[in-house]
Amino acid sequence: MKAEKYRYTGDGKVKLESLPTDSGEDHVRKDEILKKFTKNLSRLAEQQNRLYADRREGVIVVLQALDAAGKDSLIRHVASGMNPQGVHVCCLKRPSEEELAHDYLWRVNRNLPRRGEITIFNRSYYEDVITADVLKLKKTYHMAKRVVGEKESAFIERRIRQVKDYEQYLYENSYRVVKVFLNVSKDTQRERFLERIDRQDKNWKFESGDLDTREQFEEYIKVFNRVISETGTKESPWYMIPADEKWYTRYLFSEILLDVLDKIDPEYPELPEEEQAKLSECRERLLSEKGTPESLKAQEAQKPVSGEKG
Amino acid sequence: MKAEKYRYTGDGKVKLESLPTDSGEDHVRKDEILKKFTKNLSRLAEQQNRLYADRREGVIVVLQALDAAGKDSLIRHVASGMNPQGVHVCCLKRPSEEELAHDYLWRVNRNLPRRGEITIFNRSYYEDVITADVLKLKKTYHMAKRVVGEKESAFIERRIRQVKDYEQYLYENSYRVVKVFLNVSKDTQRERFLERIDRQDKNWKFESGDLDTREQFEEYIKVFNRVISETGTKESPWYMIPADEKWYTRYLFSEILLDVLDKIDPEYPELPEEEQAKLSECRERLLSEKGTPESLKAQEAQKPVSGEKG
Repeated sequence: MKAEKYRYTGDGKVKLESLPTDSGEDHVRKDEILKKFTKNLSRLAEQQNRLYADRREGVIVVLQALDAAGKDSLIRHVASGMNPQGVHVCCLKRPSEEELAHDYLWRVNRNLPRRGEITIFNRSYYEDVITADVLKLKKTYHMAKRVVGEKESAFIERRIRQVKDYEQYLYENSYRVVKVFLNVSKDTQRERFLERIDRQDKNWKFESGDLDTREQFEEYIKVFNRVISETGTKESPWYMIPADEKWYTRYLFSEILLDVLDKIDPEYPELPEEEQAKLSECRERLLSEKGTPESLKAQEAQKPVSGEKG
Repeated sequence: MKAEKYRYTGDGKVKLESLPTDSGEDHVRKDEILKKFTKNLSRLAEQQNRLYADRREGVIVVLQALDAAGKDSLIRHVASGMNPQGVHVCCLKRPSEEELAHDYLWRVNRNLPRRGEITIFNRSYYEDVITADVLKLKKTYHMAKRVVGEKESAFIERRIRQVKDYEQYLYENSYRVVKVFLNVSKDTQRERFLERIDRQDKNWKFESGDLDTREQFEEYIKVFNRVISETGTKESPWYMIPADEKWYTRYLFSEILLDVLDKIDPEYPELPEEEQAKLSECRERLLSEKGTPESLKAQEAQKPVSGEKG
């Protein structure tokens, strides 16, 4: 699968600015990718259904990116094929007063999926590492001196360790954490910003402050390089996928999700033997109900009960 | 203070069965201790009020013990002096279906205090280490093979590390975790069980299964020895206090809480300068209201405004 190429599990140093932001070097044909994507969506729906029935593992998907990389539309297009009963999207906005009064993982915890379910975090606790660093937020935190009094570099180092510990803890408690960075070029970001400015139906996605953040594009990339380099592991890998062409990003994202689900390899639970034994009896009861057509009875009589040998 | 003696911060090995379960070796007089306890309660109320106003740190108190050690009545007697707006008691019962579908710290997280507040956990995540080990619960967990398929000893080792990481994370995020083990003797447990059986108003606290747990008394102590030995740290110490005499346990517990609060050293926040400046004006406005008695005006005129020099 193509997405493997974009996986990072902790070997070497990440340099996002040298990684592809489009499909060019993968030599793919768009029409073929679109066909594969459609197939992926139905496999995803099937695997998610198994996951939900099985309930042994939970899936946490972290989506991070700079502005206008296409997170929202990606989620809409890929998650829409799955059963919303088992798939949640959590969009962490600017923290509320209540959230700020707690540790920064508190609101993440509150939004963790049950085992058997999937939560996609549209932005995540990585904001509390990256943005806190770029914007020097630490100074504004109302916390004990031991937390905010230390050197700036110690603060981010510490948060990186905390995040790693947290993801390891989740993995060890029957969760999978998979992290995806949408790698968009600065040029594409400009195009998409212009579109947001020019199209009235897209105005709501834009605010002038986005251009200030754009001025720090390189600074954000630098911090992401560091944080991804230090938090990518075999158990909780990062994927840094090209985000300049939405059709390709979607396809790669579907491959990543399928890969996680295939690794979990969820199975429909088997009924315990005594329940199994009751199945024939239950079928009999249904077929003996008044008004059951003879044709249905004949057809059913030929089927083996699920789990029966031969 | 007497409680220091019972503090464990990670040096050496803990052996609960050799530690005192009553006040005997401390050579104290009950009447003096009761007086000190009353004083402690008012200092506690004052310090907790400061903590609540200051909001820089949150306090997590973990209470663990074998049955009938007196957790409930201890909480009732010590916490009652504090303002319930900033003090919460969280009693973790048998986990619900929803709780079991998440990682074991999920329900703890949901009950964490805001900074500035105190939560006393009447039983805690330590149950998920200790009880899981003694009762071999692991086998009943519906989780991935990597979680439940390993050796029994690896499972508890892992949980001990997770708990340590978690407490370190909390400390680094402006919380204090203090852990208290009520060390009750097996004889006192028997007496209290008999009282629960004999007194109708105490029957509800008893169930016959408690005697089965009592049969594992030594086994539980053995696991507590291990877990306390490995999780006591300078930042998140354990206290193992005698629990055969309730008046003494209460006194020691109040000393422990005071010690945590004194270490935090919370202060009433100072108003920012511009707000400070408005105070005189606000006093003037109040005093110029129609119907203010002349006597109040004369009295108020002599006072300096809070924060004013001289």
